[in-house]
Amino acid sequence: MTVAAVGTTRRGRGARKAKRTAFDTTMLPALKRKLPLTEPMDAGQIDKIDAASMHILENVGVQFRDEIALADWKQAGAKVDGEMVYLDRFLVRELIATIPETFTYHARDPAKSLPFGKDHGIFIPMTGAPYLRDLNDDRRNPTLGDLAMFHKLAHMLPALHSSAHHIVEPYDHPISQRHLRITYSSMKHSDKTFMGMTTSPKNAEDVLDMCAIVFGEAFLETHPVVTGNCNGNSPLVWDETMLGALRAFSRRNQPVLCSPFVLGGANTPASVAPTVAQLNAEALSALAYTQVIRKGAPAIYGHYLSTVSMKSGAPMAGTPEISLMNFMIGQMARHYGVPWRTSNTLGGAKMFDAQAGYESAMTLNAVLMAGANYMWHSAGWNEAGMHCSTAKFIVDAEMCAMGYRMAEGIRWDDFAEALAAVGDVGPGGHYLGHPHTLENFQRAFFMPEMFDNNSIEQWVAEGSISITERALTRARDLLAAYEEPKLDPGTDEALRDYIARREREIPAADALNQEH
Amino acid sequence: MTVAAVGTTRRGRGARKAKRTAFDTTMLPALKRKLPLTEPMDAGQIDKIDAASMHILENVGVQFRDEIALADWKQAGAKVDGEMVYLDRFLVRELIATIPETFTYHARDPAKSLPFGKDHGIFIPMTGAPYLRDLNDDRRNPTLGDLAMFHKLAHMLPALHSSAHHIVEPYDHPISQRHLRITYSSMKHSDKTFMGMTTSPKNAEDVLDMCAIVFGEAFLETHPVVTGNCNGNSPLVWDETMLGALRAFSRRNQPVLCSPFVLGGANTPASVAPTVAQLNAEALSALAYTQVIRKGAPAIYGHYLSTVSMKSGAPMAGTPEISLMNFMIGQMARHYGVPWRTSNTLGGAKMFDAQAGYESAMTLNAVLMAGANYMWHSAGWNEAGMHCSTAKFIVDAEMCAMGYRMAEGIRWDDFAEALAAVGDVGPGGHYLGHPHTLENFQRAFFMPEMFDNNSIEQWVAEGSISITERALTRARDLLAAYEEPKLDPGTDEALRDYIARREREIPAADALNQEH
Repeated sequence: MTVAAVGTTRRGRGARKAKRTAFDTTMLPALKRKLPLTEPMDAGQIDKIDAASMHILENVGVQFRDEIALADWKQAGAKVDGEMVYLDRFLVRELIATIPETFTYHARDPAKSLPFGKDHGIFIPMTGAPYLRDLNDDRRNPTLGDLAMFHKLAHMLPALHSSAHHIVEPYDHPISQRHLRITYSSMKHSDKTFMGMTTSPKNAEDVLDMCAIVFGEAFLETHPVVTGNCNGNSPLVWDETMLGALRAFSRRNQPVLCSPFVLGGANTPASVAPTVAQLNAEALSALAYTQVIRKGAPAIYGHYLSTVSMKSGAPMAGTPEISLMNFMIGQMARHYGVPWRTSNTLGGAKMFDAQAGYESAMTLNAVLMAGANYMWHSAGWNEAGMHCSTAKFIVDAEMCAMGYRMAEGIRWDDFAEALAAVGDVGPGGHYLGHPHTLENFQRAFFMPEMFDNNSIEQWVAEGSISITERALTRARDLLAAYEEPKLDPGTDEALRDYIARREREIPAADALNQEH
Repeated sequence: MTVAAVGTTRRGRGARKAKRTAFDTTMLPALKRKLPLTEPMDAGQIDKIDAASMHILENVGVQFRDEIALADWKQAGAKVDGEMVYLDRFLVRELIATIPETFTYHARDPAKSLPFGKDHGIFIPMTGAPYLRDLNDDRRNPTLGDLAMFHKLAHMLPALHSSAHHIVEPYDHPISQRHLRITYSSMKHSDKTFMGMTTSPKNAEDVLDMCAIVFGEAFLETHPVVTGNCNGNSPLVWDETMLGALRAFSRRNQPVLCSPFVLGGANTPASVAPTVAQLNAEALSALAYTQVIRKGAPAIYGHYLSTVSMKSGAPMAGTPEISLMNFMIGQMARHYGVPWRTSNTLGGAKMFDAQAGYESAMTLNAVLMAGANYMWHSAGWNEAGMHCSTAKFIVDAEMCAMGYRMAEGIRWDDFAEALAAVGDVGPGGHYLGHPHTLENFQRAFFMPEMFDNNSIEQWVAEGSISITERALTRARDLLAAYEEPKLDPGTDEALRDYIARREREIPAADALNQEH
């Protein structure tokens, strides 16, 4: 959306298409942030959080509900007592020191590979929705076809840097085999980066084997190509499934998001700073474990973050404390020199309404100003993650493009020239015809396409079209213009063979006959 | 709302009312910001803007379309050529040096007077809407009754610090006399601070005479009690009406908002930094003029700020460049040591929809992080200011309360105690019954009342109530619970006498018979 104005260029077939469809789908490069970050803690307060987290790791301990992890920790020199692991601060510091601060996150199209970490940021769509609101805004269970639709949209929306994985949960395929079809859909419908399923250690292995087919086993061994998320059970528990998936990714040198799942006030103290201290301890314990598995493997400081309504127990989005915690967690991740994942445009609204807009924009601002590297759930999330809204997916992606522009900061390159224009135009004039304006108007001010800024008379004359309808029309137009970034036929065949073999091996009494 | 959680207390009749109506209407104190500000410019870049603005003032000049102002400027030592005034940078610096950096903005209820400037911020509702969306969300021209409704709501919404003035334009009263009824309505329906009409120098005098009735002439002479806005015509023009009103306010020591009216790209260069340089020159020229009128009179660096769609010419809201300009202008105002007014939750949407939510929240974040002191248009603004939405008024006010909480920063006072709770609860536990939670849950995490965070099943069971309906129900409930903060009967009578006399004096061929 208005990508030309952000400094990218249009070439060849892309250019003709852009002209024909009146929108450009060229992916924005990874954001390189130039705005100063919001850092509310001074060095003493960072140390206070660090010391509190280390105290928790040493004295309260973390429960690893997994035999292998317990053995690994014993081997690594931690104090292990039953399922409890007590991590000495020196051991934690030594372990996390080998996590790379930056790396390149490789995409199938090398031009879409992303510099990652430090002042770079990338936008990844939401994942995991058990429902969608579809192209008619109807709420229903998703299918593999719906998932493919979102992968296509993610492929075409300039601010999205990834097709992620199960944006929506495809209910028309047996759960035991679903990860294969999800991964294939991510890989096939987009050549941007993608994520890998971590629903079990074996599923993670399947994803990594498929990555090896696409990228080559040797390339995979030395290049991050897929990110896997491991949720913790706050407070202070990691389970067998997640730890097994973590090991699968770390062993093969692929980045793991170490994500305590925080419902502030329910599974953390009812206070901002202590919640960050607990979350920080949890994240550190898993980050350290990735280095027990493989020293130097990429890993990402993560979390899912909400606060809980003490009236209803419901998770909330866009609240001030979520912003504050994001600011603080960003400081902690940078303190440890570890890249950082957070969640972006979360919303708790049932419809794509003003609540959804407020919540999403509050969080977008916070995560940008907090300096997040991996901005997950950047498009589509609504109803506390219960559905992915097609309309919101489109508008969120444009909001990310706007946030991107803000975070790029101020241009000074045309300053002298534009000041000369002030002299040319003089008091009472206007700038619309001035050469500086004609030369700069396309990149000067972002023109959101999903926002209607016309007069109400014009809006009514055009049919009083709601933002939901505008966004769904855009989604249909994008899908009509979609061109598949073809997989190499040999690779495609190898992937299909792999899936066919694994689907024969994996029991699925309830398997449905599905074409992929 | 949920004001108890922000540290205020409930006492006496207020407490009983709060209990009965289940919401507290106690005004939040002026925000005292503790989060660090977003300051994208280094000292050299601030100097660059300053130098560019001074160059404009010295060489391009500013047009003062007003005989008195031209004579004043000649007298003050400026170079005057026809209507053009060329201001030497040393003269500008000398003049603005006497503008107070802080002052107290006095309210009718002294408990609601506000510390103003530096790290304090106050929220003022929108003003000037020719339409409203009313309690049924119908869009129509407003009446004095509608204006009174908004003044009552502003009085009751905790985050709003002012009843402002013509939130909506009351079309049922002759325009020539309208300022009298508007001012009376502000004063009568709320005892918070308010604004004064500047629609003509004589109207401004009427407002100030009415302020003298309420506060006493001697008090007025030494205490700011009313703010008046003077818009500039960008580029670089100030007109007779605005300058006359400015003089009326400055002469009587009341704060003037010096507000260039910026449509970025149409009446400024199509570029962020040069737009700020022009706007800064414009604001400085009027700020300096307030000190020509009365040395030491309070004045506020202001602007109306939008960017213009180069496709349609329409003003846009919530765009990234508006955020960037806010960050920069805040730095300039602090550089000069002058308090700063900007616009808050602007939106261009026709309905109270997701667009309105996004736009408003983007701007709210920007103005908070930019360090604005006077956050005007903080509630109700939609459709580029063409209507004030009753529903949005309510939700915006809650958003301001959320932004307020964010800007207050992080509490550390319960840190040790909450960490002890982490040890008590331990891995796999939960915090809901812990004494620390029971003691802190009300203030720990903001619980927005206008956002629905329940499950969709519960939401549907309760009638799938939209955020617009929720907000309008809240507005009706607030109005039902409204208690007028009675004016002293003598004062009230004096005000009514004044209005009656002035309405006899001011021609109003089209005068309608109106009770006030």
